[in-house]
Amino acid sequence: MRARLTGIGVACPRHRIVEDVAGVASAATEFGTDVVLKTTRGGYDGKGVWMIDASTPADVVAEPFRAGVPVLAEERVDFARELSAVVARSPHGQAVAYPVVESVQRDGICVEVIAPAPGLPEDRAVEAQRVALTVAAELDVVGVLAVELFETTDGRLLVNELAMRPHNSGHWSIEGAVTSQFENHLRAVLDLPLGSPAARAPYTVMVNVLGGDLAEIYPTYRHLMARDPGLKVHWYGKGIRAGRKLGHVTVYGDDLASLRERAWHAANYIRGDIDE
Amino acid sequence: MRARLTGIGVACPRHRIVEDVAGVASAATEFGTDVVLKTTRGGYDGKGVWMIDASTPADVVAEPFRAGVPVLAEERVDFARELSAVVARSPHGQAVAYPVVESVQRDGICVEVIAPAPGLPEDRAVEAQRVALTVAAELDVVGVLAVELFETTDGRLLVNELAMRPHNSGHWSIEGAVTSQFENHLRAVLDLPLGSPAARAPYTVMVNVLGGDLAEIYPTYRHLMARDPGLKVHWYGKGIRAGRKLGHVTVYGDDLASLRERAWHAANYIRGDIDE
Repeated sequence: MRARLTGIGVACPRHRIVEDVAGVASAATEFGTDVVLKTTRGGYDGKGVWMIDASTPADVVAEPFRAGVPVLAEERVDFARELSAVVARSPHGQAVAYPVVESVQRDGICVEVIAPAPGLPEDRAVEAQRVALTVAAELDVVGVLAVELFETTDGRLLVNELAMRPHNSGHWSIEGAVTSQFENHLRAVLDLPLGSPAARAPYTVMVNVLGGDLAEIYPTYRHLMARDPGLKVHWYGKGIRAGRKLGHVTVYGDDLASLRERAWHAANYIRGDIDE
Repeated sequence: MRARLTGIGVACPRHRIVEDVAGVASAATEFGTDVVLKTTRGGYDGKGVWMIDASTPADVVAEPFRAGVPVLAEERVDFARELSAVVARSPHGQAVAYPVVESVQRDGICVEVIAPAPGLPEDRAVEAQRVALTVAAELDVVGVLAVELFETTDGRLLVNELAMRPHNSGHWSIEGAVTSQFENHLRAVLDLPLGSPAARAPYTVMVNVLGGDLAEIYPTYRHLMARDPGLKVHWYGKGIRAGRKLGHVTVYGDDLASLRERAWHAANYIRGDIDE
């Protein structure tokens, strides 16, 4: 992925394939930063990723090499936040770009998405959309593509990861956009004209509900729906496992601080972290 | 229905059960208006309804009596337009009222719904909602109830019909309201707290697609979706029959005239009445 993106002129973190612990040290010297190691298969939601600094014990640095797949070393990017640019593209080449969102991560897992990314300068948002549209066109993507980006502290955009499917960072679009990422994915696959990706409200906030020590979920609906008639609860019906994305909640409106409070309250209540 | 509504103080057209053609003439004299005859079972979408005036031949006046069910005679109301007040009510008695809509009829069939009803005075809208909430409470309705009303030329509201289910006049809420009538119907049946019925846009316009001499539907999507990325097409997958409601289209936004043009264009194009 890194080779191909670099080949089509898309900015990525500096990177190279490493063979062993000595290779990691050499990469750190080359980059002049701490290093991120990634197994090149099987990673998601922070799995298959190691953060390496000068104090990391050698046996931890050796861990990724035990997976039996090539290991990628990347510079540890000094980023202000993570963004996601979601696009949809159909076989005949029509493409639409959703508003660029901020993706809030905790322990390598997306926990919250704010659409659009607050305070993102217009030219940087357009640049992120252009990167995603370029990737979709160059890789001949059909359907939804999410491009996850670092916004660096010095204002650059670097591609972190690609997801060639309807993506967690696009779930806000179910209620928040004229056409949801799922509808546009289907339109794209069917080669029907794509629907407008425009936002329907000034802000939409989505918070994931991650698995853990959850009690029964259904009774929490009664309290939350009574408390907040504008709250949308999505539950995937998956088995409960710690850290797994089991569902999400969405709210939309004008006042970002209030929306974030409402969404986080609901997610925390479903999880049982708060009881009122 | 008329007896029960009158009993709970809800205004209806003047009415009485008639036994024969002579009874119809007598009702016309009593009301001082033309008469509407309705069979008391089996009617929908204009079926089971006869408009009778002084020039109607006796054999037509006699028609409804051949259905073998009691026949209701009602005054022919001098109305400016038809409105619909949709509410949802749950077993524990919570209820929500959607914005009151205008329902445009052609040949006894609803062809268009405008949400909210343009130019409806606030106090009259509240009266319509109060009527619907009263009917729901008095009849112990669980789920969605649509109350179809005449807005008379002298500004009164009279109940025309009831529909105790998600109703055509509420389809606009799928995209147009915070909580669709279908979601609130399910919440009501499950006795979960109801969601906000508030409108999401200044206006939402829904136009039905009625069956007739239709060619293949699917190819029309390509033109319509390309022409209008904000258009929402709903197709029910029913067999095609003249006058049958086969699907509907919805648009929402600020400019009512433009919304009506877009929605009618799409419905007429799907029907094949226009070809561009």
